[in-house]
Amino acid sequence: MTQSLKTYMDNRMELINQQLEQFVYALEIPARLQESMLYSIRAGGKRIRPILMLAACEAYGESSHRALAVACAVEMIHTYSLIHDDLPAMDDDDVRRGQLTNHKQFDEATAILAGDGLLTTAFYVIANQDALTDQEKSYLIKELSKASGPEGMVAGQMLDMEGENKRLDIKHLEAIHKRKTGELLRFSAVGGAYIGGATDSQLKEIEVYAGYLGLLFQIQDDILDVIGDEQDLGKPVGSDESNRKSTYPQLLGLEGAIEQKEHYAQKAKEALWKAGVDSTYLEDIIDYISNRNN
Amino acid sequence: MTQSLKTYMDNRMELINQQLEQFVYALEIPARLQESMLYSIRAGGKRIRPILMLAACEAYGESSHRALAVACAVEMIHTYSLIHDDLPAMDDDDVRRGQLTNHKQFDEATAILAGDGLLTTAFYVIANQDALTDQEKSYLIKELSKASGPEGMVAGQMLDMEGENKRLDIKHLEAIHKRKTGELLRFSAVGGAYIGGATDSQLKEIEVYAGYLGLLFQIQDDILDVIGDEQDLGKPVGSDESNRKSTYPQLLGLEGAIEQKEHYAQKAKEALWKAGVDSTYLEDIIDYISNRNN
Repeated sequence: MTQSLKTYMDNRMELINQQLEQFVYALEIPARLQESMLYSIRAGGKRIRPILMLAACEAYGESSHRALAVACAVEMIHTYSLIHDDLPAMDDDDVRRGQLTNHKQFDEATAILAGDGLLTTAFYVIANQDALTDQEKSYLIKELSKASGPEGMVAGQMLDMEGENKRLDIKHLEAIHKRKTGELLRFSAVGGAYIGGATDSQLKEIEVYAGYLGLLFQIQDDILDVIGDEQDLGKPVGSDESNRKSTYPQLLGLEGAIEQKEHYAQKAKEALWKAGVDSTYLEDIIDYISNRNN
Repeated sequence: MTQSLKTYMDNRMELINQQLEQFVYALEIPARLQESMLYSIRAGGKRIRPILMLAACEAYGESSHRALAVACAVEMIHTYSLIHDDLPAMDDDDVRRGQLTNHKQFDEATAILAGDGLLTTAFYVIANQDALTDQEKSYLIKELSKASGPEGMVAGQMLDMEGENKRLDIKHLEAIHKRKTGELLRFSAVGGAYIGGATDSQLKEIEVYAGYLGLLFQIQDDILDVIGDEQDLGKPVGSDESNRKSTYPQLLGLEGAIEQKEHYAQKAKEALWKAGVDSTYLEDIIDYISNRNN
């Protein structure tokens, strides 16, 4: 990661973390529910989606403060999806990012409700945001609900579970990832550019950029599960193989997966050039996602 | 129930059921997820929330077609809440409305995702509704997400679970019901009146009306659990006692609960008179909720 991207990400992450906590703190809700929502919000992570949203907004010359609430909404939806995916009935994970998953720290009922609460609050914070026009709110809520709903992220989790213990081909694998992780990344970039004032044709190029970003994200995830460091990752490596999940390295070999990654990174950069923006951070983010070690 | 209310409800219920199915059918999603969402949508029920919304809209002289998508959104949220509440980690119910609950018919993971999918789609259908202005969409999404989120319905379910096996007083009991069932009923009436063009002071009276409607709904639920007919209810009676839940009849006696119900019905009617509307159906709905047998 370049020094300038690191400084940028650290700075934006602090803004996002503060605002996220504030949104959840401001809720007048049962104490245990609030603790549970805060627990997962605070569990951290890379905040890649909200940072991408702010960077895309700024790339079109708009200050990112108007995008901040929407960026937090995206992170709330990402966080809810992790809480529900970790449940015993789903992926049954006890540890995430080096700490207990929500249902292990609290209990299953609380975890289900914390997830439901974060999902619903995501739409509330957008609809309640004075810095956005009603037209912007309508557009953003429509696109976010589509990206995260049963045609998007929820479909991805369903297909992912159905695909376990099956040998999938690349096309099938990418169709799952496109929904499970791609759609929310796509919304982050496109929604940020939209708030920043991008034209329709620029939004189309940003969408192409974000599509490749999603694929890069997944390839690198799969590669790290083979050659990553457990300490850096905060979870065991080799879990894809023991869970019998189809992955890029399994289908293309490790070398093939790395080549494919480089191909997608190149495509993402080409799309970005066409989107005609001051693209420093958006371009740095491609390299960061391709080469991250966790 | 008066003949005229019955005809009205049957007619509106048909509209709502058609539109609800159409919204879920139109989604391009994994087959099993769609089946699971449709299964619970089709499980029926009284559709009291969406009917209330259409009636409140019409009470202010506006045709109800502009409120139909929002009414369906409310029913999607109600349906998602039943699916999640029935899960083993929550109320652990195998049967609802005389048929298997979603997770018994499908499986827990599918039921969790079907609930998540319905909740997210609710916001999508409002944001995607051309018959509403952007200003109306923003208002309705803000109010619906507040009513159904962690300060509203989700808090209600949390408090309800925490209150099990405890002896609650009436004040505590009503604080739970206000959130668990009251908030969504309140939104239905207020949102419908808003779309119908009610003034701010009229909306305030409709809100008072809907508050009493929520309490009536709950008292009658509790009474039916004591003196109802299992066939009509589609579920066993006496479950509150065996689940050790606090109820109105338990706290006030059966006679006291019936008196309290009549008191609330009177208060609901007074609020409605102040709201100055062609209130035939809204008034009939008070009596219907107070005296329904399922």
